[in-house]
Amino acid sequence: MRYRALVEYDGTAYYGFQRQRAGQKTIQGELERGLAVLAKGPVTIVGAGRTDSGVHASGQTVSFKLDWSHGPDALARAWNANLPADIAVRALSSAPAEFHPRFDALRRTYKYYVYNQTTRSPLRRRYSWHVRQPLDLDRLNAAAALLIGRHDFATFGQPPQGKRTVREVYEAAWTEEGPFLVFLVEANAFLYRMVRSLVGTMKQVGEGAWSVAQFETALAAADRQRAGKTAPAHGLTLVSVTYKEWRVEDEDIRHQTS
Amino acid sequence: MRYRALVEYDGTAYYGFQRQRAGQKTIQGELERGLAVLAKGPVTIVGAGRTDSGVHASGQTVSFKLDWSHGPDALARAWNANLPADIAVRALSSAPAEFHPRFDALRRTYKYYVYNQTTRSPLRRRYSWHVRQPLDLDRLNAAAALLIGRHDFATFGQPPQGKRTVREVYEAAWTEEGPFLVFLVEANAFLYRMVRSLVGTMKQVGEGAWSVAQFETALAAADRQRAGKTAPAHGLTLVSVTYKEWRVEDEDIRHQTS
Repeated sequence: MRYRALVEYDGTAYYGFQRQRAGQKTIQGELERGLAVLAKGPVTIVGAGRTDSGVHASGQTVSFKLDWSHGPDALARAWNANLPADIAVRALSSAPAEFHPRFDALRRTYKYYVYNQTTRSPLRRRYSWHVRQPLDLDRLNAAAALLIGRHDFATFGQPPQGKRTVREVYEAAWTEEGPFLVFLVEANAFLYRMVRSLVGTMKQVGEGAWSVAQFETALAAADRQRAGKTAPAHGLTLVSVTYKEWRVEDEDIRHQTS
Repeated sequence: MRYRALVEYDGTAYYGFQRQRAGQKTIQGELERGLAVLAKGPVTIVGAGRTDSGVHASGQTVSFKLDWSHGPDALARAWNANLPADIAVRALSSAPAEFHPRFDALRRTYKYYVYNQTTRSPLRRRYSWHVRQPLDLDRLNAAAALLIGRHDFATFGQPPQGKRTVREVYEAAWTEEGPFLVFLVEANAFLYRMVRSLVGTMKQVGEGAWSVAQFETALAAADRQRAGKTAPAHGLTLVSVTYKEWRVEDEDIRHQTS
């Protein structure tokens, strides 16, 4: 039987989602290890997004095949009991035999948290990037608006496979949430490091080091050398993946409570 | 010159606020070590609340004497540069020579976060207690209301020094904040482990294992043996300390954004 699951994790302690060579702890590795205990043999997991080292997820989607006779809820409970505290299965259901979490995904949504205050905050440090200099929300949004639509994003990342660097962005906007500036971006797919490269470059626009026009020129150049700095991993969370008939979402809840 | 400072910390990695014997990392120890670098000699710090191992603070108040000629802002910056990522000075000013953060404190305010959902949440695990069984908010508040006023709280903790176990509670209430149930309590002072003992016992009321009347009887008994279980440290944060002419507050901001 094929299953799909919604997975949340704190990426701080991991070398990203995807299984690596021995000795490097990954999300996929821990998820597979937990399932192997139940399956009494190896199980391979596929994830929708190969999040980078240090990146978090509240709505990662994974899929796997398993013989299990006690129902999906019991499977979720048993699996969770075999996972570390920084990884959890939030929802689990059976899936069509042909379901593939990466190929079938229509959209991915990421949030990036910037803690934009003079003094750093120990209690907020884990899931946000501390930027001291005040960023201008209007300038950030002027840059973000340029991203919407189909563009060649080669400036901001490399393709995980193949050579295509064209992606379609459906949503890209900054909002203020208390002491944070939050960038929400939704696209059909992302290049490697794309969100972090966008955030790091937009930050330079927000602080006034770059003009919005410079940002526009850099995007149009489709040249990786033209990007600004890359924002750190720990501010980034994969919040949802959208499928044709299955949208799982776990609203980003670390900083919000409604 | 005497100074006072508002300090925030993530208590996860520490043996509480107060300096311990060598080899045990404490908040006080780290704060003093950071100042000693600037003072080129030992500096002793006094804190308003001796938070327990694993307890956090967004509004701890500390005081110390130091010869410093570059102004309070420069002192805060230099001190922060000599502190680890999980401790930060949020505000700093000069203080009257006789100021004592513990003796002069009129009120302390704590918040306790319960994450009251079926499935655990890796991204919320660090600053809240995961309670699986649904707690009844009305029952929690019926118990909390009994705490307000002057009571002998011997059931819920031991005095840090002396024998007096009477304390005055000004505010005690549970509210729902998204997936959390949050207990806010303000008192002139607290017994050792008092908030965690109250929360652990009220949890038993909230899940129906104890009646509100049982809770009332346990409080009236003034007998440490009559308390319920003690809630874990990591859900607790010291949010503010109130002084006659100086109320510093850093609204709990880990889960809230307004």
